[in-house]
This record gives sequence, C-alpha cells and structure tokens, in this order.
Amino acid sequence: MHQDGVYASVFSWRYGSPEMRALFSEKETRTQWRKVWVALAKAQAKAGLVSEKELKELEKHVSEIDIEKALQLEKTIKHDLMAELRVFAEQSGVAGGRLHAGATSMDIEDNADVLRLKKALRLIRQKAARLLSAYRKQIAAHAKVRCMALTHLQTAEPTTIGYRFCSYAQDVLIDLECLHALEGWVKGKGFKGAVGTSASYVELLKGKKVSAEEMENEALRELGLKAFDVSTQVYTRKVDYLVLSALASIAASLHKFAFDLRFLQSPYVFEEMEPFTEMQVGSSAMPFKRNPVKAERLCSLARFVSSTSEVAWQNAANSMLERTLDDSANRRIVIPEAFLALDEALQLAIVLAEGLRVNKKVVEKNFRAFAPFAMTEVLLMRLVEKGEDRQKMHEHLRNLSLKAWQDVQEGKPNPLAKLVEEDKTIAKKLSAKELRAVFEESHVGLAEEKCKRFLKVLDEKLLGEHVSQKRVDVAY
Amino acid sequence: MHQDGVYASVFSWRYGSPEMRALFSEKETRTQWRKVWVALAKAQAKAGLVSEKELKELEKHVSEIDIEKALQLEKTIKHDLMAELRVFAEQSGVAGGRLHAGATSMDIEDNADVLRLKKALRLIRQKAARLLSAYRKQIAAHAKVRCMALTHLQTAEPTTIGYRFCSYAQDVLIDLECLHALEGWVKGKGFKGAVGTSASYVELLKGKKVSAEEMENEALRELGLKAFDVSTQVYTRKVDYLVLSALASIAASLHKFAFDLRFLQSPYVFEEMEPFTEMQVGSSAMPFKRNPVKAERLCSLARFVSSTSEVAWQNAANSMLERTLDDSANRRIVIPEAFLALDEALQLAIVLAEGLRVNKKVVEKNFRAFAPFAMTEVLLMRLVEKGEDRQKMHEHLRNLSLKAWQDVQEGKPNPLAKLVEEDKTIAKKLSAKELRAVFEESHVGLAEEKCKRFLKVLDEKLLGEHVSQKRVDVAY
Amino acid sequence: MHQDGVYASVFSWRYGSPEMRALFSEKETRTQWRKVWVALAKAQAKAGLVSEKELKELEKHVSEIDIEKALQLEKTIKHDLMAELRVFAEQSGVAGGRLHAGATSMDIEDNADVLRLKKALRLIRQKAARLLSAYRKQIAAHAKVRCMALTHLQTAEPTTIGYRFCSYAQDVLIDLECLHALEGWVKGKGFKGAVGTSASYVELLKGKKVSAEEMENEALRELGLKAFDVSTQVYTRKVDYLVLSALASIAASLHKFAFDLRFLQSPYVFEEMEPFTEMQVGSSAMPFKRNPVKAERLCSLARFVSSTSEVAWQNAANSMLERTLDDSANRRIVIPEAFLALDEALQLAIVLAEGLRVNKKVVEKNFRAFAPFAMTEVLLMRLVEKGEDRQKMHEHLRNLSLKAWQDVQEGKPNPLAKLVEEDKTIAKKLSAKELRAVFEESHVGLAEEKCKRFLKVLDEKLLGEHVSQKRVDVAY
Amino acid sequence: MHQDGVYASVFSWRYGSPEMRALFSEKETRTQWRKVWVALAKAQAKAGLVSEKELKELEKHVSEIDIEKALQLEKTIKHDLMAELRVFAEQSGVAGGRLHAGATSMDIEDNADVLRLKKALRLIRQKAARLLSAYRKQIAAHAKVRCMALTHLQTAEPTTIGYRFCSYAQDVLIDLECLHALEGWVKGKGFKGAVGTSASYVELLKGKKVSAEEMENEALRELGLKAFDVSTQVYTRKVDYLVLSALASIAASLHKFAFDLRFLQSPYVFEEMEPFTEMQVGSSAMPFKRNPVKAERLCSLARFVSSTSEVAWQNAANSMLERTLDDSANRRIVIPEAFLALDEALQLAIVLAEGLRVNKKVVEKNFRAFAPFAMTEVLLMRLVEKGEDRQKMHEHLRNLSLKAWQDVQEGKPNPLAKLVEEDKTIAKKLSAKELRAVFEESHVGLAEEKCKRFLKVLDEKLLGEHVSQKRVDVAY
Repeated sequence: MHQDGVYASVFSWRYGSPEMRALFSEKETRTQWRKVWVALAKAQAKAGLVSEKELKELEKHVSEIDIEKALQLEKTIKHDLMAELRVFAEQSGVAGGRLHAGATSMDIEDNADVLRLKKALRLIRQKAARLLSAYRKQIAAHAKVRCMALTHLQTAEPTTIGYRFCSYAQDVLIDLECLHALEGWVKGKGFKGAVGTSASYVELLKGKKVSAEEMENEALRELGLKAFDVSTQVYTRKVDYLVLSALASIAASLHKFAFDLRFLQSPYVFEEMEPFTEMQVGSSAMPFKRNPVKAERLCSLARFVSSTSEVAWQNAANSMLERTLDDSANRRIVIPEAFLALDEALQLAIVLAEGLRVNKKVVEKNFRAFAPFAMTEVLLMRLVEKGEDRQKMHEHLRNLSLKAWQDVQEGKPNPLAKLVEEDKTIAKKLSAKELRAVFEESHVGLAEEKCKRFLKVLDEKLLGEHVSQKRVDVAY
Repeated sequence: MHQDGVYASVFSWRYGSPEMRALFSEKETRTQWRKVWVALAKAQAKAGLVSEKELKELEKHVSEIDIEKALQLEKTIKHDLMAELRVFAEQSGVAGGRLHAGATSMDIEDNADVLRLKKALRLIRQKAARLLSAYRKQIAAHAKVRCMALTHLQTAEPTTIGYRFCSYAQDVLIDLECLHALEGWVKGKGFKGAVGTSASYVELLKGKKVSAEEMENEALRELGLKAFDVSTQVYTRKVDYLVLSALASIAASLHKFAFDLRFLQSPYVFEEMEPFTEMQVGSSAMPFKRNPVKAERLCSLARFVSSTSEVAWQNAANSMLERTLDDSANRRIVIPEAFLALDEALQLAIVLAEGLRVNKKVVEKNFRAFAPFAMTEVLLMRLVEKGEDRQKMHEHLRNLSLKAWQDVQEGKPNPLAKLVEEDKTIAKKLSAKELRAVFEESHVGLAEEKCKRFLKVLDEKLLGEHVSQKRVDVAY
Repeated sequence: MHQDGVYASVFSWRYGSPEMRALFSEKETRTQWRKVWVALAKAQAKAGLVSEKELKELEKHVSEIDIEKALQLEKTIKHDLMAELRVFAEQSGVAGGRLHAGATSMDIEDNADVLRLKKALRLIRQKAARLLSAYRKQIAAHAKVRCMALTHLQTAEPTTIGYRFCSYAQDVLIDLECLHALEGWVKGKGFKGAVGTSASYVELLKGKKVSAEEMENEALRELGLKAFDVSTQVYTRKVDYLVLSALASIAASLHKFAFDLRFLQSPYVFEEMEPFTEMQVGSSAMPFKRNPVKAERLCSLARFVSSTSEVAWQNAANSMLERTLDDSANRRIVIPEAFLALDEALQLAIVLAEGLRVNKKVVEKNFRAFAPFAMTEVLLMRLVEKGEDRQKMHEHLRNLSLKAWQDVQEGKPNPLAKLVEEDKTIAKKLSAKELRAVFEESHVGLAEEKCKRFLKVLDEKLLGEHVSQKRVDVAY
Repeated sequence: MHQDGVYASVFSWRYGSPEMRALFSEKETRTQWRKVWVALAKAQAKAGLVSEKELKELEKHVSEIDIEKALQLEKTIKHDLMAELRVFAEQSGVAGGRLHAGATSMDIEDNADVLRLKKALRLIRQKAARLLSAYRKQIAAHAKVRCMALTHLQTAEPTTIGYRFCSYAQDVLIDLECLHALEGWVKGKGFKGAVGTSASYVELLKGKKVSAEEMENEALRELGLKAFDVSTQVYTRKVDYLVLSALASIAASLHKFAFDLRFLQSPYVFEEMEPFTEMQVGSSAMPFKRNPVKAERLCSLARFVSSTSEVAWQNAANSMLERTLDDSANRRIVIPEAFLALDEALQLAIVLAEGLRVNKKVVEKNFRAFAPFAMTEVLLMRLVEKGEDRQKMHEHLRNLSLKAWQDVQEGKPNPLAKLVEEDKTIAKKLSAKELRAVFEESHVGLAEEKCKRFLKVLDEKLLGEHVSQKRVDVAY
C-alpha cells in the first residue's frame, strides 16, 4: 500500500469498508467497462454484427484485467478507456475488432459509472438499514428510561432516552426514502453516441433488422440498467449532484447523533459512552478519560461528505452544450471519496449505536437534579386551578426554584420538592400527597407511547430493506 | 422602500415575483402564526377548553396584524412570537387568554414555517411547469432544425436545436420529480410541546375527553398539514437541507440552459439571442451588441442559491439534543433568499425560453462550415466497407480535412465535399452521387424522432401540473 | 420598513449596526457613484474639459439623491447607473453634460464598490479591536483563575480561564493581520474604460496637456483610492473572494468563542454565563434556565458568513475574458449580507466578551472534582523518580482513580487525594506532606505567565488600532 | 499501486507532481514525526535529560521508517503516533526511552504538520513563480498583438493579447502576496503539552537549569519553525482555513485563465490553442478537433480545491475548548488533496502558458471583422466636434453598422469603413483620409504601454522568488 514517495489516500488503508473500497478500485472500473462493451456486442450480435463465437471469446476475457499493461499503453495514446479497449481487444483476438462499434467513450464510461453509483447506493442503503436496526434496539430498550431533555444545551423538560433515539431513527428513515427515490432518478446514459443523437449507431445499423433504439434497449437489458430518454455526450450531471447531496443528507443525520453522544459522554454529563476497546491507548494518567474518538471521527468525515456536493453542482451548472470535460477530473475524486467517507461514517454509526452504553444511574441522578424545576410548570397550573393568582404564584415558585438551584450547583440533591412541601402558601391549596404526586411523576408525556408506535413504523419500513449483516470493522 | 441609512435587500425591490415576496413578508409570517394559534384553539375547543364564542372572537382578529405595535412590545419582552401573541390576545379580549395553551413557541413557528415552505415549493413547481411549457414549444418548433453539437466547446457531430432543448427540459422534469418527492418529505412539527413529548398537552387535557394526539391531529387537519411522528422542540432540520438542495438542483438546471445561451449568443457563434427590450440601453457605439444580461443574471442568482444549502447542512448536523438555537438567525436569511433568488431565476428562464430567437440562417451557416468534418466518419465506414484499408484512408481523409480547415478558418465555405469528390483514390470506390449523399445528409441520427417521443413524455408529465399563468416581469 | 406584500431582509430591521446598514443603503450607493463622477470631472478639469464653474455646480448637487426619480427612469432605460446619471445631470444643468466623459459604467461602480469595501472592512476592524479590548479585560481578570481544560469535551489537565481567553484573542489577532493585509490587496479598478485599456480616455484627451494615466491618477488621488495596474472591465473578482474569505475567517474565530460559551453555560458545567437582560422572556417555569441565545445567534450568523465566499469564488473563476456579468446580481446579495451578518456577529461577540459572568465558585468546584485525576501524572513521575516500577505504579494509581471516579459521578467530593495518602505502597515513598503538595498545586504550568506575556503582545498590537467606541446594541 | 479490491486515489498515480506526492506520503509523515521527536530530545539534552550518546543513537535511526511494523502495532494499541514511537524507540535501544518526554501527541504531530504545510506552500509558490515567468513571455511576445476584447462574451473594444495576459499575471501576483503573508501566519503549535500550558514540561524540568520556554525555543530553533504564543492542545485550526482558502484563491486565478483559453480555442473563435501532443488520441474522424483537455482538467481540479476550505472552516469554528478531535479524519483528506489538486492544476497552467499557440492570423481576422464597430465611437466624437448633432449622428452610424453587421454574419469582410467613406452626410465633415485614419488605428489605448510597465513590476516581484525549474509532466 505505502510506497516511498507516493501519497496514499486514507481511503486506501484507513477508512472505508472492504466492499466499498473494492467497488471503487481501478480493477472494478475496468471490469465494468468490459461488461458494458460485451453488453453492447451482445446487442449488436442480434443485428448480425457480431457472431456467437466472437461473443464467447469476448466473454472469456472479460475479467482478464491487466492494469499495468493498460497504463503502459495509456502513456502512449493518452486515453485511458482506449488503452483498456486495446488490451481487451488484443486478448480477444479477432473478436476484439467487434468491440466498441459505433460507440463513443462515454457510452462505455458513463454507463459503467452509473452501474457503480447504483451499487454504491445499495451498499449505503443496506448499512442505513443496519443502523436503523441498531437504533431499534436502543428505542425498545430505553423507551421508558426517563432523562432530561436539553434545549439550548440547557436542561429543559424530561423525555426518555428511547424517544430521543426515535428522532435519530426518523432522520435515517427520511434518508432511506431519499435513497429509494434516487433508485428511480439515477439512470444511465444509454448508448446514444457522441452527442446523444445515436447517429453513429443509426449509420452502423443501416439495413440491419435491428434499429438503434432496439440495440440500445437490448444492451441496457443485458446490463440491468435503465437509461434517460435524452442525453448529451453524457448523462445529465445533475444526477451527480442529487446523489452527493443525498449522501450529505445522510451524513447530517449521523453527525447529529454522534455530536449528541459526544456531549452526553462528557464527564459533566456522563449519561452515555461510546464502546471502548480495552487495549486502546487512552490517557495513561487519567484512567477514567473516555475520549469519544469514534463519534468525533464520524463528525469529521460527515463534514467532508457535505463539502463534495458543491463540486457536483458546479459540474452540473457549467457543463456546456453537449458536454465539457470540466467534470471529469474532480468526479474521479469526489464521487469515490464521498461514498467511502460516508461508508466509514455509517460503519462508525453502527458501531456506536450497537455498542453504546447508557449510564442509567447517572441519567437518573441528572434527572433528579434537574427535573423538579420542570415540575413547577405543572404546579403552577394546579395552583391556578385552585384559584391562586398566576402572577403571584409564578413569583413565589421562582424564588423557591432559585433557592433549590443553589443547592444543585453545589452538588447537593435538589431540595425543591421539599421546599414546596414546607411552603405555607402552597400548603393551603395543595396537600402533601398532591404535591408529592407532582414531583414523583416523570412528566415525560407520550414519550413511551410514541416509542411503541414508532417501533411499528420502523418495523414496517425495515420489512422491505436488505439489512447489511456484514461484520463492521472500524479503525478504533 | 428605500429609507435613509437602511440597507434594503435586492429581494425587496429588484428581484423576486410579487407572490414570492409577499409570501416571505413579515405580515404573512404573523398571519400564519395567528392561523396556527387559531387552529390549536379550535382543536382545544373540542376538549371544552375554548368556547364557540371565544373561537369566533379569535377568528375575527386573525388578520389584524399590527407589526409596529408588536415590534414595540418585542423591544421590552425580547421575544418576537410572544410579542405578537400579546397583540393578538389583546385584540381578542377574554378569548385572547385561550391562545397558546400548552404550546411552546416552536409549536407555532415551526408549523407556520412548514406551511410557508410548502406554499413556496408549490410556486416554484408551477413556474417550473411554465418553463417546461416554454421548452415544449422550442422543442416542437426546432425538432428538425439541424445544428452543430459541441463537446469541449468544439464542434462535434450534428444534432438538432429541438433535441438540445429536450435535454434542458429533461433536467427540469427531474426537478419536478424532486419537488414531488419533497411534498411527502416536508412535514410539520405538529403540536408536541417543548421537547417533543407532548407533555404539556397531556397535562392540559388530563380528564378531558380529547387526548393529546387527538388534539394534535385535529389542529393539523384544520391547517391541512401532515406532521412527523417524532420531533424534538422542532421538526428535524434535515428537511431544510433537503429543500435547499432541491432548490440548488433546479438552479443548476437553469444555469446550464442560460450558460449555453450566453455562448450561443456570442457574435462568433450567434445562433441564439435572448429577447431584447428595444428601450434597453445597450452600447451606444456598438449597435449590434446584444449583451445577454438576463442569462447572465440568471447564472449569478443560481450560484447564490447553490451556496445556501451548506448553511442548512450545518444547522441539521449541529442541532444538538432536543434543539439548539444556532439555526434560527440564518434560517431567517437563507430560506427566504434561496426561494426568492430561485424565483427570479425561474422568471428569467421563462422569459428566455419563451422569447429567445434562433438565428436560423447563422445556424445553417455554421452547420455548413463544420458538419462536413463530421461526415468523414461516415465516409471512412463506407470506404472500409468497400475494401479500403482503414489506416490509410484515415490518413488520407485527415489530409483533406486539414486542407478544408484552412479555408474554413479564413471564412471561406468548407470545400471538403468538393475535395473528396475530386479525389482520385476515393473516386475509385465511391461515385460522386454516393459521395454527395453522404455530405448532403444531416447526420443527426434520431434527434428528430427523439424530440417527438420526448414531447409525449413531457405532455404526460405536464398533465398533472398546475402551470403558472402569471404575468412574468423581470427587471430587464 | 415592513410593507404589505414585501419581503424585508432581517438586515433591514433586526440585525446589523446602524453604521453598517447605512453603508450598504441605496442612498449611500448613489452618493458614492456621484462622488466618483465628480472626482473624474475634477481630474478632467485639469485637462480643460470641465470648467471651474461647472465643477462647482456638480459639487453642489452631489448629495441630492432622489431615488424614486432614478428608479422611475430606470424602468424606461433599463440601466441603474445611467438612470442615476441622468438625474444627477439634470440637477446640474449644463455642467451635467460634463459627467461620465470617456467613462464606462464600471469606472464608476467598481471604484464606488471598492471605496465601500474599504470602509466596511475598516468598521469590521474597529469592532475586532473592540472585541480584543474586551478579551483583554477577561485575560487580565482571570489570568490565574484555574479551571479544567477539556479536550474531546473530556476534562483533561488544568488551565486558567485567562489563558483560554488568550486563545480566543490570538485568533482575532490573526484576523487583524488579515484585515491589515487586505488593506493592501483591495484596490480599485481605476479609470480604464470598457476593457481596461483606457482607450476612450486616450481618445478624449488627444491633444490635451494631461495624459490618460495622469487623469486616472488625479481622480484616484481625489478619491483617496489606489488602483490596480491592470484591469479588465472590472477589478479582478478574486478580490471579492479574498474579502469574503477573510470575513469567514473572522466568523470562525467568533463561532469558536461562542460555542465554547454555550457549552460552559450548560447547567451541567455552568462555569460561564452570557449577560442576560432581566426583562427577557426566559422560561416561565424554569427560572434558572439561561438560554445562551446571543451566543447561539452568533454561531448561526457565522455559519451564514462562511457560505458566501463560495459564491465569490465562482464569480472569480468564471469571469470570462474582459468580464462577464454573471457576478453582478449575486454580489448585490452576498457582499452586503456577509458584512452585515459579520457585523452583527461581532456586536454579539463584544456584548458577550464584555458582559459574560464567570461562576468562579462552580469553576472551582469542577476543578476540585476533576483536577486530582490529572495530578496522578505528576505522582507517577515522582514515584518513578523514587525508584518504583512505572508499570506497577500506573496500574496502582489507575485502581485508586477508578474508585475515586465512582464518588465523583455520584456527586461526592473527589476522594483521590485521601485515597492516595492512605495508601501504604505510596506512603513508603512519599510523605503525606509531599503528597499534599502534589494535590494542592494547581498544575496549570505557565498559564498565568503566558497570560501576562500575551497581554503585552496584545497591547502592542492594539496600539495602532482604532478601537470602536460605538454603543453596541443587539436585538437581545 | 493498484491492488485488487483497493481504492487508489487519483493522486497516487494520475495527478500531482512527484515532489508533492512524496511530501504527503506516509513515509514522509513518519520521518517528520521522528525529526520532531529528535529536536525535542536535543532541546532536553541541554537540560541534562538526554545524553550526547543517546542523541546520537536517536539520530542514527531517524530514517529507519518501517511502516508495516508500525501499522501492525497500531492494530493492537489503536494509536498511530504511539505505534510509530514504539518502533522508533525499539530501534534506538535505551535512548528510545528518552523520546517523547513530557510531550503530548499533538506536540509531535502538529509541528510536523506545520512543517509540511510550509514546505507544500513553498512548492506552490515556486510553481506560481514559474507560471508567472511563462506569462511574462506571453506578455512580452504579444504586447502589441491587437485582438478583440470581449465583455459578456460579446466583442467589445480592442485590446492586445499581451494585455490580457497581464491580467492573468496580476491575479497570480496577488496570490504570491497571499502566499507571502501566509509564511508569517502559519506557525507551529510549539511544545506546550496537552492543553497548551506547558505543565508537563514545567514538571519535567523542575530543578533543571533550562526552563520550559527555553526548551521549547531550543526545539523550535532546531526545527527551523516559529510557534504561536498561545495554543490549546493544537495550533489554532483557523490556520488550516487560511491555507486552504489561499489555495482556493490561486485555483480561481488558474481557472479563469484556463476557461478563457477553452473559449478562445473553440473553432468559432480559434484564436488560441493549448499545446497538443501528437500521439494524443483526438477524434479520429475530425482531425481538426482540438479538445482543450488540459484546460478542462485544470478547471475541474480548481473546482475541487475550492470545496475544501469549507471543511477547514467547520473544523476551526467547531473545535471546542482545548480541542475536539472532529478535525482529525477530514484533515487527512482535504489538506493533502487540496495541495495535490492545486499542484496538478499549476502544472497544467504552466504547460498551457508555456506552450499555448496564438493563431495570429485568426486573431487578426476576428479583429478586422469586429473592431470597426468599436471605431464608430471615435467617429461619433469627431463628428460632434465638427458640429454635428450627436443624436442624429448616432442614429446614422447605427444604421450603417447594422448594414455592416449583416455582412459580417454572412462571413463577408466588414464593409463599415467603406460604407462610412461613401456616406455623403459624413463626407461633408470628415475627409476620406481622416476617416481612414480612424479605421486604421488599432484603438487599443494604452494596452502596449501597460504591458511594458507591468513587465517591470513583474520582474521586480520575481526577483525575490525561487522559480521552480522542475520538469513539468502532466498526464496529457
């Protein structure tokens, strides 16, 4: 992997799953090109342009990728696809001469690219489904585990941990819907020649019993690919933007989840912890220190993913007339790397969601410290119902709360319930039992019911999904 | 509009349609808030919390927006929604006390925001449909008008002007599909209280015959809005990202079309011209100068639209736990301005697509100058069919082409057909008639057929769309 | 401000200082244009093209902006600058005919734009200096206030609050250096005509005693502006990118500071609090709740600023040949709004830095809870010095730490110092006094000294700066 | 390079110079870490913490990088720097134990990163200087070659090709100034320990004759690096933003140049051509077709560069308190790849600027076709001087121009001069000789003089620069 004097992308050795790395390897690229060539030859065979024997010969050599040879040749002829074609053709003898008939480079490359995009999107989708399964377990396990919700990073009203996971899961469900929509939107260029008119194929098939459209349809069927009705030299580059912004949207979902975790893992909060490998070198002096490095790495990669769609936008917006080549070089970078970065981020999210620990004791401690303040809202309602003046009572409760707040800040238990119980004004209206009822209630509203109902939604959505069962390895 | 010492956004006076500007006016914002309050009150009326009389009173004042008063009040209480609430409540007398019961600010604001997003998306969609109608006409009118296609900004093979318009239209069709998908994805927060658990409503409705969910559903029905199953204090901010990246995708489609036009309008090419107002101050000294200022402005605005989605991404990714407020200030900027900029860009695109002129004579002149070079491809095929050596013939044709190229560069007619006809080597294989046939053919492949077929697709898609019939005014 | 049916940007009424809003008002735009016209006329007067009397007449009307009239005229002639010119010319009678001689629109607009850029940058710089003064006070006041430093949001080693402020201040010092550099980089187009060759001025001045360069230099001197040696129709658009990315860099500094504050203000940490207006509507039920809305707003606006430079990049990269107009419409948006958003963010940062409260008691409580863990590092060093085996001692201290950690998580005082003192193995090597010394030390290294030294650096840098003394008002 | 199943970045084999690739290779990374460790040890030797013999031992092994071994170890201990440390330490025997004393990982990594940033910036600067030299030649060679300038892609007034090159060069001169400023802004973290307070070094050096600052200064001197006064665990991440946005700014300059070339190379214009390798596979059928693939690739890479700074912005803005690790993973991607992409873009720009061909004949042909229209401006001035009514004459000239325009569009010579000469109204005021003088003049203003003056500026600026003399190889 590492050669002296050569840059090696982190996606070659540090980040990304084996399946995604393989999908974007040079060998795979060339294998796909060859498959497209063969599909075209098959379709042309129906028009009598290629013989059965030739077809067989071509199929025999489709996997004989010889990158070194092709690269050597490319140095001379300065065209990567043409170099590969020559190597393939040479391997196939006479049949080699049948390859690429009537085609323009982009008839081969673009269809291969779209086939790969579709595979990569499928991998992403399977991992998103796996993540949803992991969230599912967390929702089920923590549907009633009450905790403080935070708005503005300030403790607000109570919620349950399960319900918080519902919101992570709902984000990914939306992502799944986008991925589903993309399956329809991502289509191939088809076989339409240099400027999309199919002119070269029309010429080639003059007098044959197969028309240019029939040939195109046949080749697409062979590839299992749908194509746009219309193309220029390439499929419309807005597709790349749609794909990369969908990846960015998934990255945003993951980032939110991981960032929450990073906050919750802070020793000041300490409600959740990412799974930690025992051998991991943490801080030698501070044995309790648990750096949320997986969650941090996830956030880092998500950010990178978000930056790539702008490149695709510029490509789409500036691809002039029947095509300019200002897309080519950067597509070789941002498309694989957006997928590989999101792939790693998803792997991390899966590891986190499957392995995170909830420090229930601390969660409950924090709840007891901060929830009573939220209860004053209910108390106020009750006092007003009993005829007290809202304004006066609000001021009164405010003062009691401020007293309690002092204690909490000094690390003492929240005395608010007791202060309220001992308060004479309040005692006139509400009995000790009634008061205790207010402070003992969790005040989590429908959180638990919502979890249950959401689990049903989730199960239904996951029914149609292929959930990745692959072993998930992340660096650490 | 323009006050001394005050910045006035171009979207207040220069860009954007009246309907889009109105939608994002402060008055509309407050009207929507009030509508959400009333819808909530109506739903609570079913639980006996609000009387019929009170409801009527509230409805009576729903449109009595008094921005100055509300802003005055806001200065004291430092909360925009609360200030508006007080103004509304005051106007409504006793009934005013029923407003906002159990609600958190975001139950009002977020639903109002989503209602607006949906309206704005609908406006965009209607204009996109109008643009498609305009493209439709161009396709129909120019389906067979042959012209040079360009790849790399180099003349390549022929195509037809109509077919080029098909590719613009297909891009917008994809955009329409995205807009369609967004209708399902953009949902309201619903009425779920401070942290999404509905706790305050549960408390409010204790002992009533209407549950918190029933109340929420009723209020949503009143608003004609669907809500997410799950929320934090807000609807998930990834929705904003999905919306803004969809707008950016439309912007990319428009930019491509306008940029092509800017190139084609260059006097060196001069095949198309944007509509030009006679009174427009062009260059006084150069009367022929036709600056494509509408197309340039379109490109400029499209670029701005593309930049806004990154802000939404950061909001979505960094909205911590049950909500942080780091989204609020920038949403007030990027959401309206992305819509207003795209709105203006669409208006410009409609004006361009409806009014552009094709200089058919020049198109044909350019075709005659450059198409013959493309014909050598066919010629080569024919010569090889007749038994000539491909390599030799290629070299031969190359030399003839280079000679012809000289003439073309000097502004003379392309002599290639003649050179070929007079060539002795070629004459041995192909008759003058056969040769002329090659050079007389347009070589546009299926361009015309594709136009026809695509028109059918387009008609079908437009069938379900509301096509904006509004008068389109753009600055100039 | 708010008109029915009209969008009003938040920068017209909610965000931005009066001085920045005025700078980007339409009146100011037109006043600047007129100043540039007059400067040009003055320079041409030296060549005898304008008389003294005419000059006086022009100067008399330079401030008579009549926007309504100009906009009315613009509707007919479709050119904003030309409409303004006619209004100005009309006001000036015969002298009006002397205006704009030999000029192209961009000779006027671009120079006016750069004059404004420079003023806006100066405002930013003065506020950055004000922010530094505020940081200065915080550094001086808290140079020795020890606190826990956090890495990965995990408590790490101790530092001092003053030293943390040094890092915020150093970031802004770097920003000041950028602003300083920009003063040199931001130059005007000068007066070079339609394509930068000065041809029209050469023609105009044929036979006069003043050359085109002399005229340009004279006009620039009048405006107090330096110009680029070379221009196309416009000054090079990379300048806009340099400006907007410098603003983004400042925005990043502010965002970091505000985000830290938002974390530190969380009730789980509670070490700092942003200034809070008493009248502010917080949460009625939770009187202790202090939402860091200023800091959140700052982060929100900073994010917007960061998005604008990409637009400028595209303008710079795609401005073809002697100028394309695809920059114009979006420059009207992103340039004012980036400045206005950063202006508001700076105002917020100043309010925060000047008014924030440090909860010293809580800071110390947190220090006592978490610092002892960091002390084990020192302890280990000492034990190894005394001949103990590092590996064994590390394990030993780790176990003690874990015990202590339990207590801390339950809200009890950190018992580590006591556990260590009571430990027999350790007692053999280090006396109770020695141990106490370790745990009593703050272990803040050079934090205090660094503060002192940095204050000197800061004072020196601030010496040359104009520190804004303007009253800072932010919404709330 | 290419392994089965492994993604290989284009920067490993297709784009980027050998020197830049080597700089970002893993071997170089580790070599730099080791150099930093040794520098630290040297500085600590002055305090008596390391012996001369040990130092020598360490220096002996500094280059013995064994990546495979380190990666193997990393799998167990999950920390890349620590794994490398162990390998180095092991190789160095007893002396190995002296390494990393008092240090935190970021004392090593961050300084190594900054050393690399500085080297990479220097490479960029040397290539920018080389590009300027190439532009210099073009300016000198074409200072008086008149051509049509274009605004809005419309032919406008004349200019000279040399003057157009001045504007490209001026852009790069601005870039050079930025790079120069960056030399001062990019500073190392120094040796300040885990949270920037130097606490661990203070502890380590207690009782030694060398203070922590002295040690830091000594180590920095050894490395030839300046450090920030203040740091957190890391150098402030705004530095990365400053670097990447400076690279983006350079990328914008190059993009503009290359995009112009792409337009000028279109057969409709055909004034310039990028150098073309003879062996290159162009279009077989269209021998004249010269796809500007180098310029297109340049634009493509430039776009990618522009997208990376947003990632750095987010890192800087969100690096909380004394450091969060959300920067790490994406810095491994965007920093090397932004440099490598810009490096390739610069190589391409150098190849283009050194090798591009100006089709002078075509330039002149285009000039003759379009310049006459611009001359009417001068004509109008003269006629008005002679007492004609401006309005009337303008209309008159406009009509003549329109007539001439017809001819030009049909490919005929521009007849305007003749039409004017034959015009009776004009003949009354201006003699045939006077008229010819107008039309024979180039009307390029000061273009040539400006070239000359600018060359002096350029020479002066280049005086202090190291101009890269490396052989420049680009793919094709």
